[in-house]
Amino acid sequence: MAVFKKMSPGRFITIGFMTVILLGALILYLPISQNEGAEVAFIDALFTSTSAVCVTGLIAIDTADHFNVFGQTVLGMLIQIGGLGVTSVGVGIIILAGKKVSFKDRILVKEAYNLDSMKGIVKLVKSILYVTLFFETIGTILSFIVFSKDYPPLKALGISLFHSVAAFNNSGFDILGGLRNLIPYQNNVLLNLTTCGLIIFGGLGFFVIKEIIHKRNFKKFTLHSKVVITMTAALLIIGTLTMKLTEDITWLGAFFFSTSARTAGFSTYPVGDFTNAGLFALIILMFIGASPASTGGGIKTTTFFALIRSTISVATNKHCTAFKRKMPNEIIYRAFILTFLSVVLVCIDSFIISILEPQYTFIQILFEVVSAFGTVGLSTGITPDLSVISKLIIIFTMFIGRLGPLTIATIWIFKPLSSVTYSEESITIG
Amino acid sequence: MAVFKKMSPGRFITIGFMTVILLGALILYLPISQNEGAEVAFIDALFTSTSAVCVTGLIAIDTADHFNVFGQTVLGMLIQIGGLGVTSVGVGIIILAGKKVSFKDRILVKEAYNLDSMKGIVKLVKSILYVTLFFETIGTILSFIVFSKDYPPLKALGISLFHSVAAFNNSGFDILGGLRNLIPYQNNVLLNLTTCGLIIFGGLGFFVIKEIIHKRNFKKFTLHSKVVITMTAALLIIGTLTMKLTEDITWLGAFFFSTSARTAGFSTYPVGDFTNAGLFALIILMFIGASPASTGGGIKTTTFFALIRSTISVATNKHCTAFKRKMPNEIIYRAFILTFLSVVLVCIDSFIISILEPQYTFIQILFEVVSAFGTVGLSTGITPDLSVISKLIIIFTMFIGRLGPLTIATIWIFKPLSSVTYSEESITIG
Ligand SMILES: [K+]
Ligand SMILES: [K+]
Repeated sequence: MAVFKKMSPGRFITIGFMTVILLGALILYLPISQNEGAEVAFIDALFTSTSAVCVTGLIAIDTADHFNVFGQTVLGMLIQIGGLGVTSVGVGIIILAGKKVSFKDRILVKEAYNLDSMKGIVKLVKSILYVTLFFETIGTILSFIVFSKDYPPLKALGISLFHSVAAFNNSGFDILGGLRNLIPYQNNVLLNLTTCGLIIFGGLGFFVIKEIIHKRNFKKFTLHSKVVITMTAALLIIGTLTMKLTEDITWLGAFFFSTSARTAGFSTYPVGDFTNAGLFALIILMFIGASPASTGGGIKTTTFFALIRSTISVATNKHCTAFKRKMPNEIIYRAFILTFLSVVLVCIDSFIISILEPQYTFIQILFEVVSAFGTVGLSTGITPDLSVISKLIIIFTMFIGRLGPLTIATIWIFKPLSSVTYSEESITIG
Repeated sequence: MAVFKKMSPGRFITIGFMTVILLGALILYLPISQNEGAEVAFIDALFTSTSAVCVTGLIAIDTADHFNVFGQTVLGMLIQIGGLGVTSVGVGIIILAGKKVSFKDRILVKEAYNLDSMKGIVKLVKSILYVTLFFETIGTILSFIVFSKDYPPLKALGISLFHSVAAFNNSGFDILGGLRNLIPYQNNVLLNLTTCGLIIFGGLGFFVIKEIIHKRNFKKFTLHSKVVITMTAALLIIGTLTMKLTEDITWLGAFFFSTSARTAGFSTYPVGDFTNAGLFALIILMFIGASPASTGGGIKTTTFFALIRSTISVATNKHCTAFKRKMPNEIIYRAFILTFLSVVLVCIDSFIISILEPQYTFIQILFEVVSAFGTVGLSTGITPDLSVISKLIIIFTMFIGRLGPLTIATIWIFKPLSSVTYSEESITIG
C-alpha cells in the first residue's frame, strides 16, 4: 500500500475507474451474465463495461439481446458506480458501514468534485446519496406508469428502475432490446418528460441541486449555480429550436434530443436518418455537455460560458464579469486549455478512425467520437461494426471524457512548479 | 473626411479592403474584362474579386475561361494589393510619388502589421516592396523555364508573372484554364519547388524574412522568428508525412500539398478524390495557416504554438517558456480567444451551408469553409455550384479570414476599458 500512499488523488481516481471497468468487463464476459446462445467477444464486454462506468451508453451489442437479468443488474450497478463516481461510492460504503472517513478519502472526494476545501465532505457525500435515491425513486414510479402498460408488473418494475437509474446518471442505456432505445415511446409525453427531468437534474450537478433545494432564490445563488442554470436553460432552448429547424420531428422530439444530446444519449428517433446540419448541431451540444460535478460529460456548461464571456469581454473591451462578479483569469485560462485538449483529442481520434473505417462518412465518425468524448452515447449506428482498434479508441475516449482531459493530462505531474525564471518576450498572434 | 479622422485604424483598413473588393467586382463584371461570350453573374464577379483581394483562390468560375488579358491583369493587381495589404500599397504609392507619409498613415501600417511601435515604418514598407519584387522576379524567371516549353514566349511570360505573383502572395489562382490548377504539372520538379519556395517565403512574414537576410544566425533571431521558423518546418514535415500516409500520391505531391494547404491553395492532384482522412488533415493545416504579417491566413503558426506550449506547460506544471523566454499571459490569452472566434465562425458557417446544400457531404462543406477562412483556396470542387447565399457566406468568411476575426470583433469598440470593478468569484470548470 506504500505505492498508493504516494499517489496523487487524480491518479488514485483514474486507477479506481480502470479497476471497476476491468472487473465489470470480466463479469460481463462470463457466460453467467449472458443470455443462452449469446456470443460476446471480450472487446465488446470491455466496450460495454467502459460505456457503463463512463455513463456513456454507446453500445457495440444490444444490452437486452445479449445480457440476462444478472448481467443487466451488473450493468445497472456499473452505471450507478460510474455516475456517482468511484470515490463517492467508496466513501458512501464507508459511511454506511459506520466507519470513520479517513483524511486520505476526504482528499479524494475533494479532488473528484473539484472542491476548494474539505469542509463538510462527509455531509456532501451523504446528501449526494440522498438526492440520487430521491430522484431515482420518483423516476421509477413515473416510468412504471408507462412501462406497466406494455410489460408484466415485475418486468415493468425492472425496466422502470433500470431506466430511472440510466436517465438520472445520464447513461443512455436501455433494456428494451433490438437497438431501438426509446424510439417506441417517441410520442409518450409522460415518459419523455420524466426522462428529460431526470436527465436535466442529473446534469446540473449536486451543488446546484443542493442550492436550489436550500436557497430557492436565484439572486442568492453562488455564481457557479447562476451560470449553470442560465447556460442549461439557454442551451435547452437553442438546442430545441435548432433540432426543430433541421429535422422533421415533433417539438417533443426536438426538446428530447436537445436535452438528451447534452450527455444523456437516449434517442426517440433514429439518429442515423438525421441531416448533416442536425448531426452537426448535436455534435456541438454533445461537445459542450452537462455541468461540473454532475453525471454528465463534455467540456461542461461553465467552461463554455467562460469561453463565450471572455471572448465578448475582449471584443467589447470590457472586464470579464458575470452576474456582477469578476471571473478569475486563472479559471478562463483553464477553460481554454481544457477545450483545446478536448478538440485535439477529438481531431486525432477522428483522423485515425477515418483512416481505419473509410466506409463511413466523416460526420458519422466525428459524431461517434464526440459522443464518446462527451460520454453521450448517441450514434448514427456505426458502433457495432467498428473494427477492434476503432473500438479501443472509442473506449479510450470515453474514459478520458469521463475523467476529464485535464485530469488525465496532469496525472503525470510529479514535481512542483519549477522556479527557474526567464525574461519575457512577446510574439505576434493572429 | 471628418468621419475618417475619427475612425480607428482597424475600421479604416476594413473599409479600405471593402472598397477595393467592390471596385474589383465592378470592373470584372464589365464586358471589357471578359472573354467574348463569357457570362459572368455579379455574385461570381464579387466572389472572384473577394477571393483575389483576400488572396484566397477559391473560384466560382474558371479564370482563364471567363476573363480576358485585361481582366486577368486586373485580377493580378487585386491579388498584389490584397497580398501586400491595402495599407502598404497606399503608403507605397505615397513613397513612390515622393510625398511625405503622414502620422495617420503610419498608424495604419502599425495596425496592419501588428507592430509595437511606429519606429521605421516607412523603411519597413520600402523593404516590403523590395522583398516582394525580388522574390516575384526570381519566381517569374524560374516559372518561365517551365511554361516556355508549353506556351509561346509572350504568353509564357504572362503566365509566369501571374503564377509568381499568385504564389508569393499565397493566392492560389492560376490562368491555365479548365479548373485544373497545377494538375498538368504535378510531376514537374522545378515548378513544384519554385512554387513551394515562393509560398513558404511569402508565408513566413516580412519580419522573419528581414531577420533571415540580416542576422543569418538562428540563435540571434527574435523569439517571434524562432517560433515561426520552427513551426513552419515542423508543420511542413508533419503535413508531408500525413498526406503521404493518407493519399496515393508521390512524395513531391505530398510535400506540395503540405506547403500549399497552409494558405497558398494550389493543387497538383484533384482534391475531390482525396480520402476523408486526407481531407481532414488538410482542414487542420488550412486552419493553422501561415505566419503573421505575411500573405497567408489561418489562425497563424505563432497562435498554434502558443496554444500547444501553454497546454504543455499546464500539463507538466512548468512555466510557459519558449527558447528560454517566458511568453506573456496576455499573448496566450489572445491566442485562445482568436482561435475560439475562428472555430465559432467555421462552425456557424458549416452549419448554415449544411442546411442550404444538403446534397454535399459534411466534410466537403467543412473543407470549403475552412479553406475560405484560412484564405487557402483549395476545394473539393463544390464552389461553382453553391447557391447565392452560400457564396455570400464564403465571401464573408474570406473577408474575415483575411482581416483576422479579432480585428473584426474589436472593430466596434468605441470606449476605453470601463473602470467599474466587481469582486472576484470563481466557477468550477470541466
Ligand atoms: K450518456
Ligand atoms: K490562398
